[in-house]
Amino acid sequence: MKFNQYAYVEIDPKKQIEELKNINFLPVNFEKYNFSDLLGTLFKNLLAEAKTPEAKTAKLSEFAINENETLTTFLAQNPQAITKNEFYNVALQLLGYHVIYDYDLNNPIDCLNKHALPYIDKKEFTLNELPEVFYRLLNTRSANGQILIDVMAAKGYFTQFWGKNEFLFFNGKSLPVFDTSKVIREVVYVESDLDTDEDGQPDLLQTTIFRPDESNIIPVPALYTASPYFGGIIANEAKNHNVDENLEDATLSNYPKYVAKPHVFANKPSSDNNQATEEAIHKSSYALNEYLLARGFASVFAGAIGTRGSDGLRITGAPEETESAKAIIEWLHGDRIAYTDRNRTSEVKADWCNHKIGMTGRSYLGTLQIAIATTGVAGLKTVVSEAAISSWYDYYREHGLVVAPEACQGEDLDLLAETCQSNLWDAGNYLKIKDKYEAMQQDLLKKSERNTGQYSDFWDARNYRHRADNIKCSWISVHGLNDWNVKPKNVYKIWQKVKNLPIQHHLFLHQGPHYNMNNLVSIDFTDLMNLWFCHELLNLQNNAYNQWPTVMIQDNLQADLWHQEKDWNNVDGQTSTYFLHQDGELQKAPDTQAKEQKFTDQGGKIFKQAKISEQQWQNEFIAGNERWLDQQLRFTTDEFIHTTTITGRPTIKLSASCSKTTGQLSVALVEIGTRKRLTDTPSFFRDQNQEFGYRFGSQMLQEFTLTKATPAKLITKAHINMQNYADLKKASQIKENTMYDFEFQLQPTYYRIPAGSQLALIIYSTDQAMTKRPLESEEYKIDLTKCSISFQQK
Amino acid sequence: MKFNQYAYVEIDPKKQIEELKNINFLPVNFEKYNFSDLLGTLFKNLLAEAKTPEAKTAKLSEFAINENETLTTFLAQNPQAITKNEFYNVALQLLGYHVIYDYDLNNPIDCLNKHALPYIDKKEFTLNELPEVFYRLLNTRSANGQILIDVMAAKGYFTQFWGKNEFLFFNGKSLPVFDTSKVIREVVYVESDLDTDEDGQPDLLQTTIFRPDESNIIPVPALYTASPYFGGIIANEAKNHNVDENLEDATLSNYPKYVAKPHVFANKPSSDNNQATEEAIHKSSYALNEYLLARGFASVFAGAIGTRGSDGLRITGAPEETESAKAIIEWLHGDRIAYTDRNRTSEVKADWCNHKIGMTGRSYLGTLQIAIATTGVAGLKTVVSEAAISSWYDYYREHGLVVAPEACQGEDLDLLAETCQSNLWDAGNYLKIKDKYEAMQQDLLKKSERNTGQYSDFWDARNYRHRADNIKCSWISVHGLNDWNVKPKNVYKIWQKVKNLPIQHHLFLHQGPHYNMNNLVSIDFTDLMNLWFCHELLNLQNNAYNQWPTVMIQDNLQADLWHQEKDWNNVDGQTSTYFLHQDGELQKAPDTQAKEQKFTDQGGKIFKQAKISEQQWQNEFIAGNERWLDQQLRFTTDEFIHTTTITGRPTIKLSASCSKTTGQLSVALVEIGTRKRLTDTPSFFRDQNQEFGYRFGSQMLQEFTLTKATPAKLITKAHINMQNYADLKKASQIKENTMYDFEFQLQPTYYRIPAGSQLALIIYSTDQAMTKRPLESEEYKIDLTKCSISFQQK
Repeated sequence: MKFNQYAYVEIDPKKQIEELKNINFLPVNFEKYNFSDLLGTLFKNLLAEAKTPEAKTAKLSEFAINENETLTTFLAQNPQAITKNEFYNVALQLLGYHVIYDYDLNNPIDCLNKHALPYIDKKEFTLNELPEVFYRLLNTRSANGQILIDVMAAKGYFTQFWGKNEFLFFNGKSLPVFDTSKVIREVVYVESDLDTDEDGQPDLLQTTIFRPDESNIIPVPALYTASPYFGGIIANEAKNHNVDENLEDATLSNYPKYVAKPHVFANKPSSDNNQATEEAIHKSSYALNEYLLARGFASVFAGAIGTRGSDGLRITGAPEETESAKAIIEWLHGDRIAYTDRNRTSEVKADWCNHKIGMTGRSYLGTLQIAIATTGVAGLKTVVSEAAISSWYDYYREHGLVVAPEACQGEDLDLLAETCQSNLWDAGNYLKIKDKYEAMQQDLLKKSERNTGQYSDFWDARNYRHRADNIKCSWISVHGLNDWNVKPKNVYKIWQKVKNLPIQHHLFLHQGPHYNMNNLVSIDFTDLMNLWFCHELLNLQNNAYNQWPTVMIQDNLQADLWHQEKDWNNVDGQTSTYFLHQDGELQKAPDTQAKEQKFTDQGGKIFKQAKISEQQWQNEFIAGNERWLDQQLRFTTDEFIHTTTITGRPTIKLSASCSKTTGQLSVALVEIGTRKRLTDTPSFFRDQNQEFGYRFGSQMLQEFTLTKATPAKLITKAHINMQNYADLKKASQIKENTMYDFEFQLQPTYYRIPAGSQLALIIYSTDQAMTKRPLESEEYKIDLTKCSISFQQK
Repeated sequence: MKFNQYAYVEIDPKKQIEELKNINFLPVNFEKYNFSDLLGTLFKNLLAEAKTPEAKTAKLSEFAINENETLTTFLAQNPQAITKNEFYNVALQLLGYHVIYDYDLNNPIDCLNKHALPYIDKKEFTLNELPEVFYRLLNTRSANGQILIDVMAAKGYFTQFWGKNEFLFFNGKSLPVFDTSKVIREVVYVESDLDTDEDGQPDLLQTTIFRPDESNIIPVPALYTASPYFGGIIANEAKNHNVDENLEDATLSNYPKYVAKPHVFANKPSSDNNQATEEAIHKSSYALNEYLLARGFASVFAGAIGTRGSDGLRITGAPEETESAKAIIEWLHGDRIAYTDRNRTSEVKADWCNHKIGMTGRSYLGTLQIAIATTGVAGLKTVVSEAAISSWYDYYREHGLVVAPEACQGEDLDLLAETCQSNLWDAGNYLKIKDKYEAMQQDLLKKSERNTGQYSDFWDARNYRHRADNIKCSWISVHGLNDWNVKPKNVYKIWQKVKNLPIQHHLFLHQGPHYNMNNLVSIDFTDLMNLWFCHELLNLQNNAYNQWPTVMIQDNLQADLWHQEKDWNNVDGQTSTYFLHQDGELQKAPDTQAKEQKFTDQGGKIFKQAKISEQQWQNEFIAGNERWLDQQLRFTTDEFIHTTTITGRPTIKLSASCSKTTGQLSVALVEIGTRKRLTDTPSFFRDQNQEFGYRFGSQMLQEFTLTKATPAKLITKAHINMQNYADLKKASQIKENTMYDFEFQLQPTYYRIPAGSQLALIIYSTDQAMTKRPLESEEYKIDLTKCSISFQQK
């Protein structure tokens, strides 16, 4: 598997030498060394675990340079050069590869090539080449996925710089020279302008800071993770709403309005400043933050309104939520007051912060980045928003239907609000808010209208995209192309806004579901983020803006291939339109003889009888398992002769009727073909651990790997309420057995169909894993002549 | 679920007050406080995360004492007493329970009772009772499974004692007062008397030490974990031997001899002493050690011969292996030399050690405890041997057959030796040992005789039980009753020896497979070990020897029930004998009309066609799934009217013939009855984390929980080579279709059959998961009249 590397910055040889000297790796007077001494010195410097010259010398005998000689015996001969093979035999061992098992001492280059590891391609290296050769080696990814200098850091190489109170950069990235044994972990209470619990006092927001001890001397940037889960998660899955029910008449929607909560303005910051007096109990919940904390970036977590330690009610998705999460940045930037404790007597400032703030986090934590970025708040310089919701309607609803996030049937906005209302666990606070909390729960339940599924002002207030023009910070979005929790439409639609703004912007699309991509084999994402944050928050000129392409997309056939694209949109490629044929084929030419076809949806009946998981249902359903065939219409292309990429959002046109006055339509685009596919989630490489710093936590290397053959794979899908045929945002009455025309878009994709596979379009109604599951059967008819599917193909 | 607590030591009230004062919890002059002030002070002392009096005071408002009042408002009224309910409302919140979700402010006692949490049962508490009430609370297990004082430790309560250079005990256990930010992690090289790589020099053994910084001032005990995996694991599953082969004539055994490797004696320790010069790269691999490291116990890991950083060959199970692992204890005890590096010039002593050594570890790591304990080495005071092998024949063979550990079909001694020969990864060392290593691999393969399966001197040298009389240390064995990797016979047979020795001894049998039991809900094992090691290695008089019963056995019906027994043997109960009836019944009366019955074993044929896992095969096979019925004989009792416990090793008598001159017989005892059973492995309580100390790593709480209903559960089984009918250690020729009599024991058990379930005896041949899987079919006949199964029942 290829250890692709995008964060290596090309630097001229003089600068390399300077950097090597700055980290005390290359002797200042290296030119005066003889070759053998310099080579020995540099290899010994790599052995950071050996603390004395004698211990380092003793360890050289553990390395073989060829089938006959150890490094010790080689150096004893006072050589004047080392061959490429000999050098890389040692290098591979340092990078974590093993003779016999991983490489052959007669041919190390094969192993380097296999893993896409860089090497200097000269027959042999003499003294002048050693700086360059070692510079590249220190910046080469090891078997654990980290660059070798990070592996050295884990062995304590950089403890020699602890207490120097300055950043140290290498190849454009910050090094872990901050004393991780002295990290400050403190809690403060930021005062917002909100009074969501209506007690007449501004809501206090508990904020947890992890920062280098050195930040008492030199201000550092902050990475802020707005995490509603930070204070704890109230497990309430058992309360999930019933989804086994018939659809109701959507025209009964009240199109509820968003109503704001009262404001009570906080005091302004004064000149008073005190030390924090409360220590953090909770731990950092994000590996990337920990990694960067060792490198000088403070890490700030806050749950904001309604979460443990904070006041207020959790009004999920509402402007109040955004405002409360934003308040933390205002404090970090010096624009808002905070106190040492809930008594609001002792003020505390973020004077350790250089006032430059980046945001990190996935899912709800990524969502709040979008929310805050669209306020244009001062101090926020960049966001790295992963698997984020850009409109809450696109999370819980679709085209007039209740459509659940994957594995969350029956979950909804009210329940997520309860999940995050962890300040109920502060029993003293519970006494105060219990009535208000109950009322809010009722309000969320009512206004989110599970009965109609319609878009309304309630949801519109929760669509951050409306305020995208306010975004002033630079932007990175990360999303899984197989994320059926936060569906890809969320990132796609915000991206279409962001890419036109005068801000730096990047998009990463990986092959995961609702997942991070920090520690993959195929890409050095953590290093890229180090480079990025150094540029954005420390003003380091490190080529970050030109280091990698605007859009990076992981391939679905080969996990270690990343497509480098300029954009992700609906016009990149040629439009292909496929028509539905009477015989079940999907062809580029229309079938002029085609007629009506019908299927009978059974609601949740067969699914419940089958006693299988939603995932298994989907696997069987898309593969065309017998028991589901009468509940769908399938149209399949011939086998593709060439590998073809589908990109953007396919558009479906349908003409359909149903046998009742309510109905739901689902469409799925599926790749058919029995072959090994990538695992749903990355496989862990349990013997490859990535240390964040020196004895400071770790994570495991992982990557999608090919697993046993499956017959089909979902590419994308969509759902629509038939009552929204005329207007996706407003329901109409429909008549039984009457044809209506539909046109809507599927979730966006970027999918390579390999030669030999077929493409199938499946038309159905109940999606067991996402839609409501009616109690009664219903007959659907499709007029094939008026149906087609179009998408960008390249 | 019940948080049972066995490590709470009953201590008189005066001693409680003294201990509370020693940890700076109870004010020295507490009698002079008024009630309200003292109550407030003690609650505030619990809030270790708040670092100033003001911060502590502010936090009191987060606690409710009843449905109307917070702790703040209550204390403001200057009360003279607190009711039981009010006190435990606050206590439950401190213990990690949540109002509404876990308990009702009107009835906290229900929640305490539900979780078996102790409380002082008085209507209200006044000043004099506060020390006792808080003492018990600090020693009460929290929702995360740890006692509350450990939860406070995780919040930094004991950092006030850092640097005091002394142990501090509370309720008989050591507290985490050691500065975990300064742990010393160092590597030394112990010189053994072995020369297994035959280079003429004594094999050096890399040894890694994690020890408190305070050990430079006060000697501390060492917990030594002999781990062949510590330096890395060579993944060689792909080389597993073929098991799809016919049995061979076992009389062809050569009964190979064990041959010792040469010795070259190490230098004796001199008066020279130096600091270690190499820092540890590897991490502690055992949570218990980390927990105890924070409490003043050094943690020592060594892989010994053949492992990374060490010299020599991995001769799995051989006396050389024992000797090399023992050498580390000799160094810790001051009896053996070690060097700072491989150059053997600079000597280093374990002068930080108090010369009292305990051992910990599971599986191979537990095995080496048995191995070393049977040498009687000086300095070794106690072992806590988990899931350990006591004879390697009982790991890889059974009654003349190759019988694999669970999930390890085709694995064998030679392959395990390769797995642990991680010094091949030191490429310089690889150059030296490669030829010797290859020869040793061949030797192990040959002498372990996969073709005959017979016992021999080769195996006899690997049976530690022969040397049990040498054991001088105290003894704790831990084993899973469902451990089909290291089968329970291993612990059972060593226990029968150990229990008769003049040493303290304990046995824990849990419901897991090949697993630890440190962090279960149902038992406070970690606390017990703290108590135990304090007694054994620090001479603390803490009642450890009388604190819990000799044998503790986790129930198979209810995970939070532990049976307290005096012994585990073959005579505890009444012997029940069941006979096999012609109609498939298993009854206490013989069937005088019974005849021969037969079945045809299909070897691995049907299994391979089925394409299922070994686990699924077993599930189906014991449940009596149709496709396996013709390959077994089943005899089933009536439904049990009363719950009945089977204990010890059932004995089977069989009269059987086979259609070839080779054959294998398997028998399984199975509980039949569709009901919810405990999970195979414990379920993690992901929101309940156990911190080892202050910012020093953690593990998750776990427990076996009831899962979805299954039709059957394996109780125990056994296998025998038919050629061993006359002598379990020596094969005879057998004739086709000729009846032979067999009598042998099944693996030991302790199993409660619930009323309503049935007991089934299954007689079969090929065990897909463990035995060889012949390529040809074979017919087996059983003479029912001469068959019976007997076991202890109570």
